[in-house]
Amino acid sequence: MAANGTNGSASTLSETPATPRVLEELHSPIFAALHEAKAKKGMSFEDVAKAIGRSEVYTAAIFYGQAKPLPEDLDALSKALEIPSGALTASLGPSFWPHRAGLIQELPPRDPVIYRLYEAVLVYGHPIKHLIHEKFGDGIMSAIDFNGEVERVPDPKGDRVRLTLEGKYLAYKRW
Amino acid sequence: MAANGTNGSASTLSETPATPRVLEELHSPIFAALHEAKAKKGMSFEDVAKAIGRSEVYTAAIFYGQAKPLPEDLDALSKALEIPSGALTASLGPSFWPHRAGLIQELPPRDPVIYRLYEAVLVYGHPIKHLIHEKFGDGIMSAIDFNGEVERVPDPKGDRVRLTLEGKYLAYKRW
Amino acid sequence: MAANGTNGSASTLSETPATPRVLEELHSPIFAALHEAKAKKGMSFEDVAKAIGRSEVYTAAIFYGQAKPLPEDLDALSKALEIPSGALTASLGPSFWPHRAGLIQELPPRDPVIYRLYEAVLVYGHPIKHLIHEKFGDGIMSAIDFNGEVERVPDPKGDRVRLTLEGKYLAYKRW
Amino acid sequence: MAANGTNGSASTLSETPATPRVLEELHSPIFAALHEAKAKKGMSFEDVAKAIGRSEVYTAAIFYGQAKPLPEDLDALSKALEIPSGALTASLGPSFWPHRAGLIQELPPRDPVIYRLYEAVLVYGHPIKHLIHEKFGDGIMSAIDFNGEVERVPDPKGDRVRLTLEGKYLAYKRW
Amino acid sequence: MAANGTNGSASTLSETPATPRVLEELHSPIFAALHEAKAKKGMSFEDVAKAIGRSEVYTAAIFYGQAKPLPEDLDALSKALEIPSGALTASLGPSFWPHRAGLIQELPPRDPVIYRLYEAVLVYGHPIKHLIHEKFGDGIMSAIDFNGEVERVPDPKGDRVRLTLEGKYLAYKRW
Amino acid sequence: MAANGTNGSASTLSETPATPRVLEELHSPIFAALHEAKAKKGMSFEDVAKAIGRSEVYTAAIFYGQAKPLPEDLDALSKALEIPSGALTASLGPSFWPHRAGLIQELPPRDPVIYRLYEAVLVYGHPIKHLIHEKFGDGIMSAIDFNGEVERVPDPKGDRVRLTLEGKYLAYKRW
Amino acid sequence: MAANGTNGSASTLSETPATPRVLEELHSPIFAALHEAKAKKGMSFEDVAKAIGRSEVYTAAIFYGQAKPLPEDLDALSKALEIPSGALTASLGPSFWPHRAGLIQELPPRDPVIYRLYEAVLVYGHPIKHLIHEKFGDGIMSAIDFNGEVERVPDPKGDRVRLTLEGKYLAYKRW
Amino acid sequence: MAANGTNGSASTLSETPATPRVLEELHSPIFAALHEAKAKKGMSFEDVAKAIGRSEVYTAAIFYGQAKPLPEDLDALSKALEIPSGALTASLGPSFWPHRAGLIQELPPRDPVIYRLYEAVLVYGHPIKHLIHEKFGDGIMSAIDFNGEVERVPDPKGDRVRLTLEGKYLAYKRW
Amino acid sequence: MAANGTNGSASTLSETPATPRVLEELHSPIFAALHEAKAKKGMSFEDVAKAIGRSEVYTAAIFYGQAKPLPEDLDALSKALEIPSGALTASLGPSFWPHRAGLIQELPPRDPVIYRLYEAVLVYGHPIKHLIHEKFGDGIMSAIDFNGEVERVPDPKGDRVRLTLEGKYLAYKRW
Amino acid sequence: MAANGTNGSASTLSETPATPRVLEELHSPIFAALHEAKAKKGMSFEDVAKAIGRSEVYTAAIFYGQAKPLPEDLDALSKALEIPSGALTASLGPSFWPHRAGLIQELPPRDPVIYRLYEAVLVYGHPIKHLIHEKFGDGIMSAIDFNGEVERVPDPKGDRVRLTLEGKYLAYKRW
Repeated sequence: MAANGTNGSASTLSETPATPRVLEELHSPIFAALHEAKAKKGMSFEDVAKAIGRSEVYTAAIFYGQAKPLPEDLDALSKALEIPSGALTASLGPSFWPHRAGLIQELPPRDPVIYRLYEAVLVYGHPIKHLIHEKFGDGIMSAIDFNGEVERVPDPKGDRVRLTLEGKYLAYKRW
Repeated sequence: MAANGTNGSASTLSETPATPRVLEELHSPIFAALHEAKAKKGMSFEDVAKAIGRSEVYTAAIFYGQAKPLPEDLDALSKALEIPSGALTASLGPSFWPHRAGLIQELPPRDPVIYRLYEAVLVYGHPIKHLIHEKFGDGIMSAIDFNGEVERVPDPKGDRVRLTLEGKYLAYKRW
Repeated sequence: MAANGTNGSASTLSETPATPRVLEELHSPIFAALHEAKAKKGMSFEDVAKAIGRSEVYTAAIFYGQAKPLPEDLDALSKALEIPSGALTASLGPSFWPHRAGLIQELPPRDPVIYRLYEAVLVYGHPIKHLIHEKFGDGIMSAIDFNGEVERVPDPKGDRVRLTLEGKYLAYKRW
Repeated sequence: MAANGTNGSASTLSETPATPRVLEELHSPIFAALHEAKAKKGMSFEDVAKAIGRSEVYTAAIFYGQAKPLPEDLDALSKALEIPSGALTASLGPSFWPHRAGLIQELPPRDPVIYRLYEAVLVYGHPIKHLIHEKFGDGIMSAIDFNGEVERVPDPKGDRVRLTLEGKYLAYKRW
Repeated sequence: MAANGTNGSASTLSETPATPRVLEELHSPIFAALHEAKAKKGMSFEDVAKAIGRSEVYTAAIFYGQAKPLPEDLDALSKALEIPSGALTASLGPSFWPHRAGLIQELPPRDPVIYRLYEAVLVYGHPIKHLIHEKFGDGIMSAIDFNGEVERVPDPKGDRVRLTLEGKYLAYKRW
Repeated sequence: MAANGTNGSASTLSETPATPRVLEELHSPIFAALHEAKAKKGMSFEDVAKAIGRSEVYTAAIFYGQAKPLPEDLDALSKALEIPSGALTASLGPSFWPHRAGLIQELPPRDPVIYRLYEAVLVYGHPIKHLIHEKFGDGIMSAIDFNGEVERVPDPKGDRVRLTLEGKYLAYKRW
Repeated sequence: MAANGTNGSASTLSETPATPRVLEELHSPIFAALHEAKAKKGMSFEDVAKAIGRSEVYTAAIFYGQAKPLPEDLDALSKALEIPSGALTASLGPSFWPHRAGLIQELPPRDPVIYRLYEAVLVYGHPIKHLIHEKFGDGIMSAIDFNGEVERVPDPKGDRVRLTLEGKYLAYKRW
Repeated sequence: MAANGTNGSASTLSETPATPRVLEELHSPIFAALHEAKAKKGMSFEDVAKAIGRSEVYTAAIFYGQAKPLPEDLDALSKALEIPSGALTASLGPSFWPHRAGLIQELPPRDPVIYRLYEAVLVYGHPIKHLIHEKFGDGIMSAIDFNGEVERVPDPKGDRVRLTLEGKYLAYKRW
Repeated sequence: MAANGTNGSASTLSETPATPRVLEELHSPIFAALHEAKAKKGMSFEDVAKAIGRSEVYTAAIFYGQAKPLPEDLDALSKALEIPSGALTASLGPSFWPHRAGLIQELPPRDPVIYRLYEAVLVYGHPIKHLIHEKFGDGIMSAIDFNGEVERVPDPKGDRVRLTLEGKYLAYKRW
Repeated sequence: MAANGTNGSASTLSETPATPRVLEELHSPIFAALHEAKAKKGMSFEDVAKAIGRSEVYTAAIFYGQAKPLPEDLDALSKALEIPSGALTASLGPSFWPHRAGLIQELPPRDPVIYRLYEAVLVYGHPIKHLIHEKFGDGIMSAIDFNGEVERVPDPKGDRVRLTLEGKYLAYKRW
């Protein structure tokens, strides 16, 4: 399955326009190529994010097919990672509409890092819902007009991972 | 099913020690009584949290059976909500060990407020995992040594919900 | 289970403030009482909707616990259906936050009326997604800032059900 | 898996008659070829729909294998997209019977665009069912004798997506 | 759960109008009362069907909450089974809209009689689909404008069950 | 995955004896070859059925790997479709034991043609079970000693699909 | 849930005719009463089987609602267990049609005794299927015209449980 | 997927030591090669079992990857089937540890032959469990220290399949 | 559901012999009574275990219905907890055969304490399997002839939970 | 799928840096190469563990992609198994972050060795949870700061498998 992509160098990526494939697109060789080029360059997401002027989480989301980069994002990525611009545009350009949320095949997620996030939703979901209602009213936190951040918070008892998730409050319409 | 609890006043709650019931405990009448007393008092979780000296999310978690209050928490709750201390201790005292994460019966969660949190995990789970690894190494963000916060962030384009989740970094042991 | 509610008359409904019960609230006797009072009055949702100044779908959503009525909605319902205002406020008032989307226990939905809607999503979901992207960009149709309508469209070959679903376009934030 | 199709040009598509493959047919290279040719031409579904004289949703449904085009549809597509007519007929011609509704592998659907449609069914399914019954009787909205439309509705507070789904009313037969 | 219904006599059934209960309605005491009255009378479905002028399958479907009887059906049932007409109308009258297809909790169905029907769909589903397409075109057999019959066919090697399922052919609309 | 089979002509099919592969056998290239040869010949299942002296449903079941053809069936198929007899025998001959009922990957089935059959089982399963018991006793309709038929029944209000399923009655043994 | 049945003595069982309840019938108080009476008598299934002239497995199947006893079985049970004949007939008499195979709620079964049987099917299912085909042809072992036995086989290395399952061979019909 | 294996002759099987592949090993080409060689030789499992001195079920289990053959089993198989001993040892030799019970992808199993075994567990599982407890105590029938047999039992009313499953009784340890 | 049990004192427990109820037995009031009596006595499982001469895990397993106590265990429990011996014998005596492994309704388990055990199986399951095979051969660790222990291991970096699971090695029988 | 890896020799493994592939990485050819090299060397995990100075379980976890080896682990593995260091670093080096817990595709696990571990969690999960709470308080045993061991314990009645799982106690934070 896409064996070329996994050990192919970026320069061999086709510049043929990408075609929507719905179910397979999350396994497009372009994502392997992005990760590989970043590894070759020895760059972290922090580095790539700075190079393209996006946040770290958003940058990583591009690498996992969970965001739609703008043309300028692709240009910046092409320069930063030395991937031919044509290959990026062919796969992630105008006709690419991300198939989001399909990356985790197993539900509940099994990888312990991701499971802990999921567990936090299971344990604190109702308390958070109730607080959103008390602070805002009958509505939700958007997952679309949304941004997030991962930070390392130094702590003498052991550093902490701080995850900030922020979304626009959307009130339920009455009609 | 627990018909008494849903329209029973707090004063009729049994002071008999609670018994671990594993599967039913999330539906204990004590939780309905807590919510009801808070409603009668016209208190928000912000008010209750201040009254008992806990954070809002943690306080709400107690009301949903997702945290184990200390004796002093129960005392403070008893005073703040005018629920007999004995009833609280009987149900949420020394022999109460929360059955966490069982409150959401439907998986994936269906309530849109909670679903959006879940969707954020599906969409951004892998990017966040990768960033945690780059910033910390081979480990996870704890969901146990963990705290969270819900804030209202004013924004001219529409106020935003900011959710901060913070957990201790735990490195995988090598042995 | 809630045996009272199913054959209880509206006048016996408790005026005790409702308590959030998360999992049971969709089966609150208030919903049976609303349907029953409407049946006794011989009113259609069209009638009730006019009486309370809301659309038909929104009105029906209140009867199924899928919307949060405003105090004026409750007043209007109380008058239109002759249900004591206190009972409505106790169950659907300030402390009621709907647990939406939990009404359909079986997934996929089995009732043929609802299954056909679901089938339309399965068959036309990707075409609609693609059209939304082409017409709007990388974003979604909100299901929160959302309204809907059911109409009967006369047709000589057999009248047609027209379902209009309309939601605000929300663009994915880039950050 | 069908590696040729994903980067093969339309002209290399086999003109051998398609064979029903039930489970694999949704991944036929013809669909990638259709999307690719449309992208090369820089056409939107609106353009293609006009060129072949079909509605936009129906046209997009053909591109996702969710409709059975007539011979004249294939001819028109062949001209509009410059795909050899033989290749289209071989794959989508007389022996092609769409395997509908199988495109969404994950249930519930995960892509947020499609999930919101699904959520609307979960939240408003029962209200809509009840309104159909009150307006028509004991029957359903057909998902077969069915048509749909996606429109952009300008709105100063943010343009809206209007989705119209219309199906013939079918009464349950009594016998 | 509905303990009364299971050993209550028909004469004690409430005449209060039925209220839509969505999830519980399949367990309404009226269905137990119908079966019980039929047993007391020593009638088969063949007898009841003759008495009310409906087919056997349709008659049995009423007893399982899978069909909406007309007022005249209820009258005929009331006479044939000596159940008070008011009780029948209260539960199965104007405000009763069947929640169809929810009776089988376990999927796949487990009862061997029903499993064999299901197995026939699994084994012969694709062949039947293909034959419908060849004989009719791109469409389906309606399960709404539908009737069915169960017959005993004598056979020296062992009598056979003949199940006839018949539905209107519905062609997919093109638009 | 079996790429040869999907565009290979029948004459290139291997005559090596088929080996039981349990999970993959439903995707054997022989089935694609059968459908392809039938399409080339422009034959319907009605034509093939006549040519081999079997019923239409049974013939179609052979094409979907859901029946075990006898040597004479293979000979007749070979002649009727001009497929080398060796290829048929290699794949569907003495060592072929059908892996029945595995063709529908999605449960519930999603294709609307097949879903309607499934829905009929959900809606009418219990009524049919009850009628079988009343007409025959404590037993089932066999799905093994079983035959079926699809017919087109002309009807001025729209032709109807009649599906006849017939199986030997099997009584539960008492021991 | 059926609280009476669990500690009610057999003599208080209603003699009202049983009504088919489909989903609840597996929890009928009659089954608890049968087990209880057997326990009071200190009888094993071996004893009861001898008393009613049935095999042990069949006898136990009656106690779990998995078989339909004949009138003479009920008479014999009534005598052997001193349960009023009327109560047995009311619940397990002419209008009782077992809802088989629904007793195991969790799938896969979790109780280790039953799981081991299930595991044997998972491990040896394909080998057994292949052997049945080689010894009999294209058909199955009936689970309807079926009998079974549990025996204790003495063995110096530890006694063994021998389970014999025997069913009529049923050949697939060709038509 | 492993296309070579399915039509490759045994002599081309690699003699490279097999590597544990956990999930893929059930689809190793060695199993296809075993079945193919047996078919070429025209041997039944009865024949192979005699040739290698094992029981029929155990022999068939080797062919489906559900048992670990000893070196002498491999030698005997090599001789009986004329498969190079090296190929057998490479794949099924010292580093092969069967991944049992993974062969049935669909749960519940769908093939009717295997489903009937599964149905027998669903229907008679609790009766068998109860009998094991009465005859042995609090323990189980081992599925590890276990053997089984399939026999043809002549019967004038139709021959019967007799399946004998025998496992050591294991008592629950108390500690 | 078992409302009495949850706040009933032990002395009101029925001494009527327990009846096997398969699905409900895990919710028998006896288990609530055991926990309650232990809480009233202020005993830990360590205390109870010492009082009855069993290990802690085994003792706790009795309290959760996961083990079958011997008569002497019941006597000792009766004395230690001052629960009437008759009540214990009625529910957990000769006719009680535990329905093991059914206590965790949600799969995967959700409570974080239990989830971590489950996660350890997911992560280390294959490594452990491979080590068992290398150290013992083709067989398993019994979960029946099995014992376990939970210990607190002091550690300056934070005390550790040590879980010892020990089961007899069972070799797969060859036959 | 990765056909090369399964019969390729270690020396042909690419030294191109590995790219994160999320879903496919568990099937990387490096794992097959590790197992193969170990088999060629005739080493047990005990041997490899000694050679690299890690415990046996941890060593086996590396072979199954469930642990992240340090550079010195890779060097030691390279020497011990004579696998080129570059190939190991490319696949398991700095950019490799294990996707843990995804190796078991079937849930519940089906292989009997792993199922028994899972069954132990189902049966003893609640007792263990309760003991952890009594011995430590409101917290969990970490599965991250965790180690395990498999030992053979000689026993005259049959040697036993002793599995020791040990994790740091983590207390729930209060905030």
